[in-house]
Amino acid sequence: MPETLTLNLSASVIEITRQLCDLQSVSGNETPLADAIVAALAGFDHLEIIRDGDTIVARTSLGRAQRVVIAGHIDTVPLNNNLPTRFETLDEVDYLWGRGTVDMKAGVAVQLKLAAELVAPVVDVTWMWYDHEEVSDDLNGLGRLARNRPDLFAGDFAILGEPTNGRIEGGCNGNLRVEIRTFGLRAHSARAWVGENAIHKAAPILNILAAYEPRSVEVEGLVYREGLNAVGITGGIAGNVIPDECMVHVNYRFAPSRSGAEALAHLHELFPGYEMTVVDLAEGARPGLDAPLAQQFLAAVGGGDAMPKYGWTDVARFSALGMPAVNYGPGDPLKAHADDERVALFQITDCEIGLRSWLTAAAN
Amino acid sequence: MPETLTLNLSASVIEITRQLCDLQSVSGNETPLADAIVAALAGFDHLEIIRDGDTIVARTSLGRAQRVVIAGHIDTVPLNNNLPTRFETLDEVDYLWGRGTVDMKAGVAVQLKLAAELVAPVVDVTWMWYDHEEVSDDLNGLGRLARNRPDLFAGDFAILGEPTNGRIEGGCNGNLRVEIRTFGLRAHSARAWVGENAIHKAAPILNILAAYEPRSVEVEGLVYREGLNAVGITGGIAGNVIPDECMVHVNYRFAPSRSGAEALAHLHELFPGYEMTVVDLAEGARPGLDAPLAQQFLAAVGGGDAMPKYGWTDVARFSALGMPAVNYGPGDPLKAHADDERVALFQITDCEIGLRSWLTAAAN
Repeated sequence: MPETLTLNLSASVIEITRQLCDLQSVSGNETPLADAIVAALAGFDHLEIIRDGDTIVARTSLGRAQRVVIAGHIDTVPLNNNLPTRFETLDEVDYLWGRGTVDMKAGVAVQLKLAAELVAPVVDVTWMWYDHEEVSDDLNGLGRLARNRPDLFAGDFAILGEPTNGRIEGGCNGNLRVEIRTFGLRAHSARAWVGENAIHKAAPILNILAAYEPRSVEVEGLVYREGLNAVGITGGIAGNVIPDECMVHVNYRFAPSRSGAEALAHLHELFPGYEMTVVDLAEGARPGLDAPLAQQFLAAVGGGDAMPKYGWTDVARFSALGMPAVNYGPGDPLKAHADDERVALFQITDCEIGLRSWLTAAAN
Repeated sequence: MPETLTLNLSASVIEITRQLCDLQSVSGNETPLADAIVAALAGFDHLEIIRDGDTIVARTSLGRAQRVVIAGHIDTVPLNNNLPTRFETLDEVDYLWGRGTVDMKAGVAVQLKLAAELVAPVVDVTWMWYDHEEVSDDLNGLGRLARNRPDLFAGDFAILGEPTNGRIEGGCNGNLRVEIRTFGLRAHSARAWVGENAIHKAAPILNILAAYEPRSVEVEGLVYREGLNAVGITGGIAGNVIPDECMVHVNYRFAPSRSGAEALAHLHELFPGYEMTVVDLAEGARPGLDAPLAQQFLAAVGGGDAMPKYGWTDVARFSALGMPAVNYGPGDPLKAHADDERVALFQITDCEIGLRSWLTAAAN
């Protein structure tokens, strides 16, 4: 018999978070939670509900001048004996502990409660709760929805509820991974001089990486810190053979001022003459904080202050559609995926207050 | 029914080589060949036969002032569609083609024929044919014999019939392998600055290796060429993680003027402050060509000329017992283990002539 849950959206956001977390939804097993969300929203006439697999869209159609997309994923990484949730207090701060509390069911709880209660927000809102965020990109529910129903992505501004400690984090760095190879000539190591050592030839690559000073780049008022690192190296055939190949796996996190193509050109410039194979390339996302709605959101919620997002998140999907997008949610991102994942309760209520006041008071 | 072979030691050394090769004896399957050798030698009263597993010793006891040990292994590396043997002619040189022709059944054929025919050599001779040379050291038949019957290793000089193109090759380089490790601090690669990249820290190690100029060291008249090489490198956890460990696998082939301990001290000197783990250490062997019997052998067979042996061979076992030892056998060592393994026929007969004349004419 499948687990069932009756979500009570009139409960507190903290209680809703607890209920959402205790219904496990590791990527690939989101259906019971998606069912519960659809059931909980069914009674609210101000919302149109659309379901695509385990992704649920709920939107208002009030004829407002502007529309905001507010999204969050409902899946989590696998458990590690960290459910059911429990409340705990550390250094006088109250937390809810357990898988999903940070990444990102506290954010989803805030979104669900506001979706249900805000019958007349000052902007039209398209709420999205999607599956398969924690696994490979081709399974991502938001990506699937963008392919199946691009019309639902109409909007002027997007907010993703990923954990940011309740700060506003704009855009995200791009992510490029390449394999750089050196080649030599195989030989018995007892007669090394008839061979050519491919591992020795990798020395200049490591020297360039070790000496590289990553840039800090200001993009639309936010300073993005880049990173260039070897994340892997392999070479060698046997203990008595001069190796004829060595591979350095390089990861470049680049500011959203650079396109993916420009990032790759930068690596070719840094490592001229080496064979280079692209393993993965994800464009960054400009923060888009100069958009009027973003400015208003920033002023209302962030006290005018925003931070750059270093990791890649789904805001890049909105950015690719030309929509300014930010991350804003409760929870410390350093506790995401951690065995001791836990969210500070005050951050959940702060986010609820911030988002509610902006959606009800913004001057549009 | 097991393969059987009747070895006819009155045939030519070329014909004996062919017969030995066509009876496969990949390491671990030497018994049929060992049986055939024992049977072939049974009729010769000037020889005392001792068997230890698949290792056979045949020795004269003529009361000569000096004793020479002449040894060869009877196993081969695995086949690769290169048996049965065939005769072929390339660039007007006649060859016997097939697994074992070079490494080292041509040498064993010469030894068997001379063991049978030389009833009164000018020195006493201890012939040894042993198993398991091509596999791990702890299985080596010569090593086992030295543990079981150290008394059989009495002698003034040793000749190992490994392929040397019919040249005399003295001693051998030592062989040291170490793992050198660097350590860092793991972090998400989106926030590389909170970590410490262990692969980048391996750059100085590769720089030292790439810049290293290996010595050429004269030892008792022979010049040994050393080699220092990375034979492997590994590091990395995942494409988005700053690695906290990197390992460089280093192989040092060192001249026999250096002990293993001195070789290791040299590496500690080259790579100060790094964690270093010894994987394998085999002492080199001094050529011992200043010994009177070696001098006579050199004059008679090598025209006074000898070469250093770069690879490690079982001569080091004799050297460790204080007995001067050389490699001397038909076949090009570069064809050992090759799929097109083949021995020039003239080298087999040249070695037979060289060894026969020295064993019958040396002035002792």
